[in-house]
Amino acid sequence: MSPDIDIPSLIARRKPGYSLEAPFYASQQLLDLDIDVIFGRHWFFAAVEPEIPEPGDYVTVTVGPHSVILLRDDDNAVRAFHNVCRHRGSRLVLDRKGFVGNLVCPYHQWTYDLSGALVHAESMSACFEKSRFGLKPVHVRSLAGLLFICLADQPPDDFEEMAAILEPYLAPHDLRGCKVATQIDIVEDGNWKLTIENNRECYHCGGHPELLCSLFHFFGYAANDVSPSQRAYYERFERVHEEFVRIWQAQDLPYEPVEKLSGRATGFRTERLALDGPGESYTMDAKAACRRLVNGFTSPRLGSLHLHTQPNAWYHFLGDHAVTFSTLPLAPDRTLLRTTWLVHRDAEAGRDYDLDTLTQVWRATNEQDGTFVGNAQRGIGSPAYEPGPYSPAEYMVDQFCTWYIERLSAHRPR
Amino acid sequence: MSPDIDIPSLIARRKPGYSLEAPFYASQQLLDLDIDVIFGRHWFFAAVEPEIPEPGDYVTVTVGPHSVILLRDDDNAVRAFHNVCRHRGSRLVLDRKGFVGNLVCPYHQWTYDLSGALVHAESMSACFEKSRFGLKPVHVRSLAGLLFICLADQPPDDFEEMAAILEPYLAPHDLRGCKVATQIDIVEDGNWKLTIENNRECYHCGGHPELLCSLFHFFGYAANDVSPSQRAYYERFERVHEEFVRIWQAQDLPYEPVEKLSGRATGFRTERLALDGPGESYTMDAKAACRRLVNGFTSPRLGSLHLHTQPNAWYHFLGDHAVTFSTLPLAPDRTLLRTTWLVHRDAEAGRDYDLDTLTQVWRATNEQDGTFVGNAQRGIGSPAYEPGPYSPAEYMVDQFCTWYIERLSAHRPR
Amino acid sequence: MSPDIDIPSLIARRKPGYSLEAPFYASQQLLDLDIDVIFGRHWFFAAVEPEIPEPGDYVTVTVGPHSVILLRDDDNAVRAFHNVCRHRGSRLVLDRKGFVGNLVCPYHQWTYDLSGALVHAESMSACFEKSRFGLKPVHVRSLAGLLFICLADQPPDDFEEMAAILEPYLAPHDLRGCKVATQIDIVEDGNWKLTIENNRECYHCGGHPELLCSLFHFFGYAANDVSPSQRAYYERFERVHEEFVRIWQAQDLPYEPVEKLSGRATGFRTERLALDGPGESYTMDAKAACRRLVNGFTSPRLGSLHLHTQPNAWYHFLGDHAVTFSTLPLAPDRTLLRTTWLVHRDAEAGRDYDLDTLTQVWRATNEQDGTFVGNAQRGIGSPAYEPGPYSPAEYMVDQFCTWYIERLSAHRPR
Repeated sequence: MSPDIDIPSLIARRKPGYSLEAPFYASQQLLDLDIDVIFGRHWFFAAVEPEIPEPGDYVTVTVGPHSVILLRDDDNAVRAFHNVCRHRGSRLVLDRKGFVGNLVCPYHQWTYDLSGALVHAESMSACFEKSRFGLKPVHVRSLAGLLFICLADQPPDDFEEMAAILEPYLAPHDLRGCKVATQIDIVEDGNWKLTIENNRECYHCGGHPELLCSLFHFFGYAANDVSPSQRAYYERFERVHEEFVRIWQAQDLPYEPVEKLSGRATGFRTERLALDGPGESYTMDAKAACRRLVNGFTSPRLGSLHLHTQPNAWYHFLGDHAVTFSTLPLAPDRTLLRTTWLVHRDAEAGRDYDLDTLTQVWRATNEQDGTFVGNAQRGIGSPAYEPGPYSPAEYMVDQFCTWYIERLSAHRPR
Repeated sequence: MSPDIDIPSLIARRKPGYSLEAPFYASQQLLDLDIDVIFGRHWFFAAVEPEIPEPGDYVTVTVGPHSVILLRDDDNAVRAFHNVCRHRGSRLVLDRKGFVGNLVCPYHQWTYDLSGALVHAESMSACFEKSRFGLKPVHVRSLAGLLFICLADQPPDDFEEMAAILEPYLAPHDLRGCKVATQIDIVEDGNWKLTIENNRECYHCGGHPELLCSLFHFFGYAANDVSPSQRAYYERFERVHEEFVRIWQAQDLPYEPVEKLSGRATGFRTERLALDGPGESYTMDAKAACRRLVNGFTSPRLGSLHLHTQPNAWYHFLGDHAVTFSTLPLAPDRTLLRTTWLVHRDAEAGRDYDLDTLTQVWRATNEQDGTFVGNAQRGIGSPAYEPGPYSPAEYMVDQFCTWYIERLSAHRPR
Repeated sequence: MSPDIDIPSLIARRKPGYSLEAPFYASQQLLDLDIDVIFGRHWFFAAVEPEIPEPGDYVTVTVGPHSVILLRDDDNAVRAFHNVCRHRGSRLVLDRKGFVGNLVCPYHQWTYDLSGALVHAESMSACFEKSRFGLKPVHVRSLAGLLFICLADQPPDDFEEMAAILEPYLAPHDLRGCKVATQIDIVEDGNWKLTIENNRECYHCGGHPELLCSLFHFFGYAANDVSPSQRAYYERFERVHEEFVRIWQAQDLPYEPVEKLSGRATGFRTERLALDGPGESYTMDAKAACRRLVNGFTSPRLGSLHLHTQPNAWYHFLGDHAVTFSTLPLAPDRTLLRTTWLVHRDAEAGRDYDLDTLTQVWRATNEQDGTFVGNAQRGIGSPAYEPGPYSPAEYMVDQFCTWYIERLSAHRPR
């Protein structure tokens, strides 16, 4: 039971270019604040449309004490509701995903339709007004098939601006034309921000041998950050990149980096990346894992459209598949990482793709990252820890921390 | 680590007819208050006399940080003591139940007799006064064999009034002439009040198919709470009830409801219930599970004497057996439910009763209720939860909440 | 979430001759204080030199949130560092023990030499000064091979005085000439102070049948503390003790008790003890467990040099082996007990000693003590617990509590 932390001082003390102070990663009080401010008042990535393709399909997403149902209603629109019965508070749906006609509370059978309206409640008094007891809605938006929710009454107003920028990058990958090949949840033994920070730099990529079969080591590196021993490798990367630029230009695929990581509520970054070797996919041989390409692409040699959206997600869109990653805090030192692999809706496992091959690299990489995050969490817990300096190649980590501190500052702690 | 909760405001805001606000069910601070005020200053049900039939027999009961020994002393009286050695605080008895001659501390062998007096302590200094270090007693009372304890120095003074009302109802069931057939502990993943509230209504009884083989669905229902679709079922219930009234009258068994659920420290309610079908017992065929009836009853067709005592227990007394239920809080979201089945002292398992048959309905019902309680606990944890309206058939839940709020109000929070 | 505890009042209320009040054993707030004041500002026993015999050998020790690396550097000196990378805080070494050339952070490969200097960090900016980012050192001292660390910037200044007194007692046992035969960690379900207090008295030794094969029951007893029934046993003990005094005198082994348990920062006590039967070792037959004696002793009949050092350790040095015990708090109600058995460096398992025989008595005794400590912890958690009186034979427990309260008083709570 640590004494109360002086959050305004912690925020004021933040030193740019350095990692955050320990309480940001280790204290329950800060996690509560993160859930209140970061996850409670910002758009965050929750699911993909192919998880709920048909009316009545639903998934639930849990963040802190919130459980949210995302479903497709009878008009094919995506809706989101708090997963709480208006009678005595029971969870309405208990499974992570499923299909329903109506939402019937398992406790006393209060029944809601897919628009959230209470349509039946047995034996209530004559003066009971059903219309006052509909499910509480949650804001939900789809960005080219990526579903974002916001728990606040008044969501940040810059989502549309992000969507306008990103749509041209994402549209060619036709996420809505995909299906979920598989989804894997793992738990990392670290704070959710360590999971995100780890994702924002390739300074640690030496620890990812499988990933380096396709990804160049230089994500986040400027030319003069490269050490002499990697100079030849870097020059090869530059040549390959030029080659990919020509491919992208030929196909009218937007590829220039867009980086809006701080100074706004809804931070994001995208960039199309050259890949090594055949340059087709994140596989051990960098070749396509699925021979049925997405959206009618005729060649898989497209590199990877990299995207991250703050606070909690990153994504890769390739010629043959897409993969999304969402992080959801479970405790100050435990984070859910949900990874979803998507392929063309008509691709068939066994025929068009092998699931192990499709998922091998990111399964290995996630596990390695989980170890890095766990080691960092444990070290940061020591009173001997003090914020250390980022390398230039970690500038996106620094940007993430800047955004995070900005967002806390913008919302006075409870 | 949630910020301190303003308990007086929470109490003042309580809205009759609606479920309680979330902190009552979810916060450690409120659980501490419940243990201090509700379990610490009221009589609560702890055990039955047949658990400790002979001198030296003991059981221990744990509630929050308290461990209490209930034992039968050498004069056949029931006594209760705190399970704490007066030397360095060790637990004295470690098992849930057993038999002792004296109470000998396992650490340094300080020895207490069954009256709690310290009778031996090795190698103490000459000025040590054994008489100052007897076990700390706990108030204990038997109501027709039901053992209630109170941890306060000054227990509520209305126990006798309850006992005087209930003795005539309970005496014919001769609990002291019974033995424990079996006792089963389960843990429900919800607040203890949710377990109690769940027990106080049959609005959810559609979820109990086994129980509905004998129990009519209408516990807590007034005639005009019954939905049109259940009208024929209700009319049958009324006819059967009339039939049972004649049986009870013929045997001089008190059967009128007594309902003293609020407005007093020691709240309780009793009522004799008609049962469906053969009307003999809570079994799958509603026939007696034990052919040796209690207390010389000649026919098992007696329905069920229903009783609940606040804060933590309910009971059913039938012609062939009795079953008691006690709830004990373990954590804000975890509750022990202890169920004890009792049959005539001379009944023999295998010959007079089959244990699986005897226990089947309540084992199934308890498990179903545990699921309901767990779902409610999880939903109430969401910030989207707000108290919802009770149906008229849930009026006893409302009464329980009223009593609970009254009792908190009567004892200023620490 | 218990309300804040008024620590100055608790300290002021301490009643000599009685056990401590419950919060000292049960509250997280007090454990945090213990880690801050007792473990954070005092010397405590961490390891033995034979655990790290060669340059590059290391062990890690965890106390509360601190993880400390103890290693032998290239000059054969023992050093200690916080196990935290200066970059982003990752744990540097992950294993409990091992061997390294340099300390290379597994996350981004920042590399430190065995003196703690940062010797490599890839791709940092030009203005980065490696010399400012060496590992943070921890004070470490060896007392005849026993390694003590102090986490404070300014350690207590009375370590040298203790060392000067104890060296003559310890030197004949040549701990540096020993090797670790085995090390066993167990977790006791009680506060670390209960583990220590349990070790400070033999009033409970009736619960240690294996230990009483060699240890006389009278550790801590004055002659007039002995009960009449043990008089004959005590007289035999006195005769054997006289016999041992002659042995110790003949070999110039210091044996007089030195007791400096309170009134100073670094409390300790030593005494050479007669043992029963053959008097050679803590074994079931009291004979030597290792036929290769330490430091060229020619006879194993030397009894046992008993030592304890506050806050956290005790030790036995015999003719044939030594055994050290360190306690490290894990939670208010969980404590690590690490036991290390040491024999002559050239002794061979299977030939000179049998590991089961060597360890049997203390494995059994530790397990019994763990049960005593667990029972005490659970009982003390009851609100009915109040401090009880120590017997005269428990005077060292009382002294430990006095020292503990003195040390808290000397350092104002945070």
